[in-house]
Amino acid sequence: MAQQWLLMLICCIGLQDSYAKYTPDWDSLDSRPLPTWYDEAKFGIFVHWGVFSVPSFHGAWFWPLWKSSHPAQDIADFMKRNYPPDFTYADFASDFTAEFFNPDEWADKFKASGAGYVVLTSKHGEGFPNWPSSHSFNWNAKAVGPNRDLVGDLAAAIRNRTDIKFGTYYCLSEWLHPLYLKDKESNFTTQSFVKTKTMPDLYELVSKYNPEIVWADMVDDLGPSSYWTAKEFLAWLFNESPVKDTVVTNDRWGPDCKCKHGSYKTCTDKFNPDNIATSTSSPFQFEDNGMSRHSGSTFFEVMFLFENILLIFNDSCGGNMLMNVGPTKYGKIMPIFEERLRQFGQWLKVNGEGVYGTVPWSHQNDTVTRNTWYTKHKRAKEGTVVYAFLLSWPTDTVLKLGAPIPSQQTEVSMLGYPDKFIWKAGPGGQGIYITIPIIPWNKLSCEWAWLLKITHITN
Amino acid sequence: MAQQWLLMLICCIGLQDSYAKYTPDWDSLDSRPLPTWYDEAKFGIFVHWGVFSVPSFHGAWFWPLWKSSHPAQDIADFMKRNYPPDFTYADFASDFTAEFFNPDEWADKFKASGAGYVVLTSKHGEGFPNWPSSHSFNWNAKAVGPNRDLVGDLAAAIRNRTDIKFGTYYCLSEWLHPLYLKDKESNFTTQSFVKTKTMPDLYELVSKYNPEIVWADMVDDLGPSSYWTAKEFLAWLFNESPVKDTVVTNDRWGPDCKCKHGSYKTCTDKFNPDNIATSTSSPFQFEDNGMSRHSGSTFFEVMFLFENILLIFNDSCGGNMLMNVGPTKYGKIMPIFEERLRQFGQWLKVNGEGVYGTVPWSHQNDTVTRNTWYTKHKRAKEGTVVYAFLLSWPTDTVLKLGAPIPSQQTEVSMLGYPDKFIWKAGPGGQGIYITIPIIPWNKLSCEWAWLLKITHITN
Amino acid sequence: MAQQWLLMLICCIGLQDSYAKYTPDWDSLDSRPLPTWYDEAKFGIFVHWGVFSVPSFHGAWFWPLWKSSHPAQDIADFMKRNYPPDFTYADFASDFTAEFFNPDEWADKFKASGAGYVVLTSKHGEGFPNWPSSHSFNWNAKAVGPNRDLVGDLAAAIRNRTDIKFGTYYCLSEWLHPLYLKDKESNFTTQSFVKTKTMPDLYELVSKYNPEIVWADMVDDLGPSSYWTAKEFLAWLFNESPVKDTVVTNDRWGPDCKCKHGSYKTCTDKFNPDNIATSTSSPFQFEDNGMSRHSGSTFFEVMFLFENILLIFNDSCGGNMLMNVGPTKYGKIMPIFEERLRQFGQWLKVNGEGVYGTVPWSHQNDTVTRNTWYTKHKRAKEGTVVYAFLLSWPTDTVLKLGAPIPSQQTEVSMLGYPDKFIWKAGPGGQGIYITIPIIPWNKLSCEWAWLLKITHITN
Amino acid sequence: MAQQWLLMLICCIGLQDSYAKYTPDWDSLDSRPLPTWYDEAKFGIFVHWGVFSVPSFHGAWFWPLWKSSHPAQDIADFMKRNYPPDFTYADFASDFTAEFFNPDEWADKFKASGAGYVVLTSKHGEGFPNWPSSHSFNWNAKAVGPNRDLVGDLAAAIRNRTDIKFGTYYCLSEWLHPLYLKDKESNFTTQSFVKTKTMPDLYELVSKYNPEIVWADMVDDLGPSSYWTAKEFLAWLFNESPVKDTVVTNDRWGPDCKCKHGSYKTCTDKFNPDNIATSTSSPFQFEDNGMSRHSGSTFFEVMFLFENILLIFNDSCGGNMLMNVGPTKYGKIMPIFEERLRQFGQWLKVNGEGVYGTVPWSHQNDTVTRNTWYTKHKRAKEGTVVYAFLLSWPTDTVLKLGAPIPSQQTEVSMLGYPDKFIWKAGPGGQGIYITIPIIPWNKLSCEWAWLLKITHITN
Repeated sequence: MAQQWLLMLICCIGLQDSYAKYTPDWDSLDSRPLPTWYDEAKFGIFVHWGVFSVPSFHGAWFWPLWKSSHPAQDIADFMKRNYPPDFTYADFASDFTAEFFNPDEWADKFKASGAGYVVLTSKHGEGFPNWPSSHSFNWNAKAVGPNRDLVGDLAAAIRNRTDIKFGTYYCLSEWLHPLYLKDKESNFTTQSFVKTKTMPDLYELVSKYNPEIVWADMVDDLGPSSYWTAKEFLAWLFNESPVKDTVVTNDRWGPDCKCKHGSYKTCTDKFNPDNIATSTSSPFQFEDNGMSRHSGSTFFEVMFLFENILLIFNDSCGGNMLMNVGPTKYGKIMPIFEERLRQFGQWLKVNGEGVYGTVPWSHQNDTVTRNTWYTKHKRAKEGTVVYAFLLSWPTDTVLKLGAPIPSQQTEVSMLGYPDKFIWKAGPGGQGIYITIPIIPWNKLSCEWAWLLKITHITN
Repeated sequence: MAQQWLLMLICCIGLQDSYAKYTPDWDSLDSRPLPTWYDEAKFGIFVHWGVFSVPSFHGAWFWPLWKSSHPAQDIADFMKRNYPPDFTYADFASDFTAEFFNPDEWADKFKASGAGYVVLTSKHGEGFPNWPSSHSFNWNAKAVGPNRDLVGDLAAAIRNRTDIKFGTYYCLSEWLHPLYLKDKESNFTTQSFVKTKTMPDLYELVSKYNPEIVWADMVDDLGPSSYWTAKEFLAWLFNESPVKDTVVTNDRWGPDCKCKHGSYKTCTDKFNPDNIATSTSSPFQFEDNGMSRHSGSTFFEVMFLFENILLIFNDSCGGNMLMNVGPTKYGKIMPIFEERLRQFGQWLKVNGEGVYGTVPWSHQNDTVTRNTWYTKHKRAKEGTVVYAFLLSWPTDTVLKLGAPIPSQQTEVSMLGYPDKFIWKAGPGGQGIYITIPIIPWNKLSCEWAWLLKITHITN
Repeated sequence: MAQQWLLMLICCIGLQDSYAKYTPDWDSLDSRPLPTWYDEAKFGIFVHWGVFSVPSFHGAWFWPLWKSSHPAQDIADFMKRNYPPDFTYADFASDFTAEFFNPDEWADKFKASGAGYVVLTSKHGEGFPNWPSSHSFNWNAKAVGPNRDLVGDLAAAIRNRTDIKFGTYYCLSEWLHPLYLKDKESNFTTQSFVKTKTMPDLYELVSKYNPEIVWADMVDDLGPSSYWTAKEFLAWLFNESPVKDTVVTNDRWGPDCKCKHGSYKTCTDKFNPDNIATSTSSPFQFEDNGMSRHSGSTFFEVMFLFENILLIFNDSCGGNMLMNVGPTKYGKIMPIFEERLRQFGQWLKVNGEGVYGTVPWSHQNDTVTRNTWYTKHKRAKEGTVVYAFLLSWPTDTVLKLGAPIPSQQTEVSMLGYPDKFIWKAGPGGQGIYITIPIIPWNKLSCEWAWLLKITHITN
Repeated sequence: MAQQWLLMLICCIGLQDSYAKYTPDWDSLDSRPLPTWYDEAKFGIFVHWGVFSVPSFHGAWFWPLWKSSHPAQDIADFMKRNYPPDFTYADFASDFTAEFFNPDEWADKFKASGAGYVVLTSKHGEGFPNWPSSHSFNWNAKAVGPNRDLVGDLAAAIRNRTDIKFGTYYCLSEWLHPLYLKDKESNFTTQSFVKTKTMPDLYELVSKYNPEIVWADMVDDLGPSSYWTAKEFLAWLFNESPVKDTVVTNDRWGPDCKCKHGSYKTCTDKFNPDNIATSTSSPFQFEDNGMSRHSGSTFFEVMFLFENILLIFNDSCGGNMLMNVGPTKYGKIMPIFEERLRQFGQWLKVNGEGVYGTVPWSHQNDTVTRNTWYTKHKRAKEGTVVYAFLLSWPTDTVLKLGAPIPSQQTEVSMLGYPDKFIWKAGPGGQGIYITIPIIPWNKLSCEWAWLLKITHITN
């Protein structure tokens, strides 16, 4: 998973009413309605934290890249320059000190961003559980390094201080775990790993911390969902677990499952294929941007990502966005990330109306004026209301939008700006021509992206 | 010295032509003209880096606060929680690794800020020289920790890649050096410390690295300049040293000297006493803001400081500003600081005209519209030209300034904005009334502070 | 297990011929004859090495004593004085460097001692495998600390350079393993731990390294042998494993098994109850003597132990002795231990005849002259031959032994001394009176204990 | 200086009575009588301890050998295998923890050896003072590493618990000190180093700790005594220092001084040139034997050295022996060294009479029976009494000594043995023939070396 301001747009699945118990088959499991909280939250924060935060170089993928058959040259150099030859990955763990981890402080910063949920890496592909797992003896955050239940402490702080939902990322497979490698070598006909490690861990994790998001992942996209006993686990999760009514899960339960089953989907090829695919289909490209105190992380990368975030956030397929933040091994969220979180919160304070309560509209973006995206109000009293996200400020005094078909009652305004905008219908009643007033710079309530609210449209 | 975005406004001394040699007395030394480069640079960067960057808690003052007769409680707690009881300050040194120190990268970032010079702590009050000093055996950056000549490497990078001047801060006294403490106990009648440590170091430093700023400091403002053999050193510096023609020094060569002698003065009580004194007279209050990976440094503090910077920067006494940045023990400039540096550079790109080439005007600030500060163009072809720094955007459509007396030819414009502003003379010809146009937000070339250029004034 | 010159006297079980396969029941398993090599080796070396070698304080029991409900005060003090408060046991692992571990050097030193086998702690109660176990991810000697297969490297060196047999100690239970604690809490009605950890480990260990001693242990003497699936494992070990013909195991496979089943027994109540019981019934009392660079280990303790060794070695029940040695975390055998090993080798060079080829005699020790112990030659051509071990040098010129009944052909000599000793039968033909000659000090071939060889006795 | 059981035989200078003050010239300084305590102590312990105890490889010479123009290959390998490339010598200092240093324990062990004085390296050629020197800021044992005044604590313990004299070794020069190197480069025409470092240190050391031995040394045998201001220091030492009446110093105050001036001489060419020269003229060859936990130190080396000690100890020139012991970086004296110390004490308990109260005899060794050395009783009531040290036990029943000329009253005995030996005069009254009785091994009171006491001789 990406270390940093990683963006993920996820289309929701259809809603259904159902009181039935679920059986461990996809038809039944897929019939479970997505809990509404998730759909309405729109925006969450992804926290990547683990032993990889110690070298803090190439993010969570440091270890496999170092130990691969073709090791990354920069990692090899990094190790050679800074560590004795016999230094191992596990030797990093005692230096994952987390001495400045203040979960209350984190919770407040997350709250300030406007996020509706937080997903913490409870265990990444390195296999280091951030809670005292019973199935990873002396290789977990209570036993070595932090000497602390990071999952439990963050969950408690978030729940005590905010209404943010707490979720956990859990990587089913582990790059270098010998039992996983054996199962893989057997072409997944054996299940030593999943039976002694993955599933015991997952049941323990859910039972103990009640995460309302269970985000599964696979390091190499291998192992069918039957190997992972995914259906059985999900049936338990949906029928019996302490979070059975509210939990949301994703679709990474096997390559056969990805993009097909799960509460929401992280597959990327369905929606908005033109300009969003790049970042979402290979989210790992952002991996260690900005996070690392060590690596080439610079201000530029962080800024660039923020622009991306906005670009994609405005996506109109009704998905959610998960923004990544990578704390230091000391337990601090670096100020540049805090700044981004707060900037996001400021923007949402003004523009939240077009985000939180919306669903996809029939048009995702505008074909006349590019870089303009749409969402639709769920149930506005002003008829059908859409929000047009302008990612760049109009260069003309008249903004021509091709998608909305206005009615007599249509009104156009900009979130955060007091006055209505003048408009007329486009030629042949198709689209709408909006006059952009001169707005004194100090009357503008936000930068980066602006939302036009268009009421009473007829399509 | 302050760890962070520490602000220092320094009034220049009068310029004089002189080709004479200097004798070691203040009359002669003070007669040396201030090299013009310094006066024109206006803006420099102060880099605080040393063993104190390891705990990175309470900045450069960590050690004396820890070991004082009334130790700071938070430091005592910090040590107790994170280190064995017998851990010493010098034990930190081997962890001052600087492994990611890339002086070229630093130079480029400094350049992007618009700064004209950089001052590195060559040795702070902890006594740790950042170069292989001959007078601090095994307690310097080449011998322990970085294993590198930090002063030399940064000097070379800055000189190779930029036209920025390189300077060094050198703390004459050292909080806990036994010889200094003995001299102090003798009421500075003995000179063991200054003769075996301070002066040999300073001559070596200047001879080896040719710093064009020699910034002296004292940890406890004690020891008269005669104890420090300041006059003799300065006579050498101005007559014989490799930087005799270009070097700038400050006035901290003894409590009797401060604010009286030196190339420029860091005393603070002369100018702008009302709202600037606070921050400049006790610059240490910003000490560890933002820098520390450990401490409570937050985004808020860093933002707040930036506003302060602007507030003070616009000071109109003709002084220079020295902005502090505190790299990590790893050798990185944290992204939040890089962002501030680049924001500063953006602002200066637009507004540099009112900064770099200016001198103090007869009025420092405006008495009618507060938060407005003045500088004057050195030799404008449009007659007498002043720049009014608006620290807050005018709330009225007419801005009333009391200080400038316009002439017929007077023109008013805003740096970065193409059109002239309409104005009329104030009542009785005193002052000027300027009509502030409605500026579309996207035509505004900067935020934070705006400079009005007023030409052909008569006072 | 004891860290140091731990002494263990083990009585052999009866020999039987058997070609049958073994079934997983004690009758069958106990019917397997003890491989003869073991019975003849008499003397082995026990190597205690692991993460506990890092604190090197209280030996292998450091962790449970530290974390017990009544922590040892000296350990609490030790941690407080030398480590930060949050330091964990697993944090020690990265400091188990073993950088000077030279297995060839070890093998040579072991050889010089006259030992017939070496038993290495492959995993103690701390749960740290000294080989890259597949069932202890990132908590083993290849993954953290040494970065090396300690078991494999030592096994290879011993086999390449000596005829010493290589064996492994493996602690079935682990003080603080959460799965073990859960099974224990269930009163051993669940078997999570034994099925996912102990047994997979043991099969892997035996299959990979072919140890000819499989020494099982339990940290708290709990869990019946059925919980441990001991019978099944032993059946495999004796029927199918690569060491099925030569392997020796002990009796610690459950409290129900101890002292009843196994190749040899480590129970202590059978033989020589008077003066040996103390040390052998609680061998752990010697635990960290001498080994520790940290603890109070002194020369006195080491000397004292050596005397004990001799005392007990001469035991006459036909058992073997296992002498403990505790290498440093760096991988060195400290010189004092090497000296003891070599002294033992010197002694055995002279006296080996009375040790290696012997069996218990009908009398274990002499009731007339105390401190005298007997062994019997297996098949001497001089009739029935016994060896009397004199633990103290006779104070009288005539040594009166009550046990041996001499014949006409009886000859008495001292191993290492050329001349025969004069003797006569005791009163009523019971026992033998031996005249001890004056032996010049430089004709004596050993110190510490002397063996009289008495041939052709009639009992 | 040697790390280990380094042997030093030092011939005393002639005794003179003198109450005069000394002037800083050699004639006057050499006229001072050697304090009698030193001559009678005969045997001292040399403790080599410092930052070099951390790598503990190649002893105190680790640093210069590593950094020489032809670095020792094994050191280069050692560093490469175990440390990051940028690791410096000074980086070792924080790992010189000394956490187990118990000076009372040390004092007791030294006492048990029979030694009359202890010499601690207060500062070796690495320049690290084991006391809080005022002239080595943050490079001393109080400032980094032990966080303790090692010199002061050991001095106090020795004085509180024993009657052993406490002395300090102080290396005048330092291999890599930049000021020393500059003075050297100037061919010692400048004195920066000696005036700011060596002499201030030495005066402080003597004034603060009152060492009764001031052992000077030079790392490269350079710098004339005039450079070192030796005469002036010694005049102060003998006239005014707190130890003026009892202090003993050596002759290493410059190459012009060595073997000529000083309380005692460490030159080696005067006495016993045949078999002793080797070890004493190049004492460093024993440097890291036995001491190192890291290096190849083995039991063999330690044993071998002990034999050497005895060999040389029996030297008959009236010199003293200084036996080296190298504690670990943890502050422990390793058991093997404790054992040697105690063995030495046992031997001296029996044979001290022939050692402590003796002076050289006219014959140093015997020309008829080699390996036999002589000392003479100072004032025996049995006339002229000599002690013959037999380094090997006589192979014949008659021992023929060529040197002593017996009288009628002559008696011959062996220390520790109750009976007199039978003797007769040698042919022509020259020498003495002694009958060696058969001594039962358990009547012999020592091993290793035996002293015959021969009374009333006539020469």
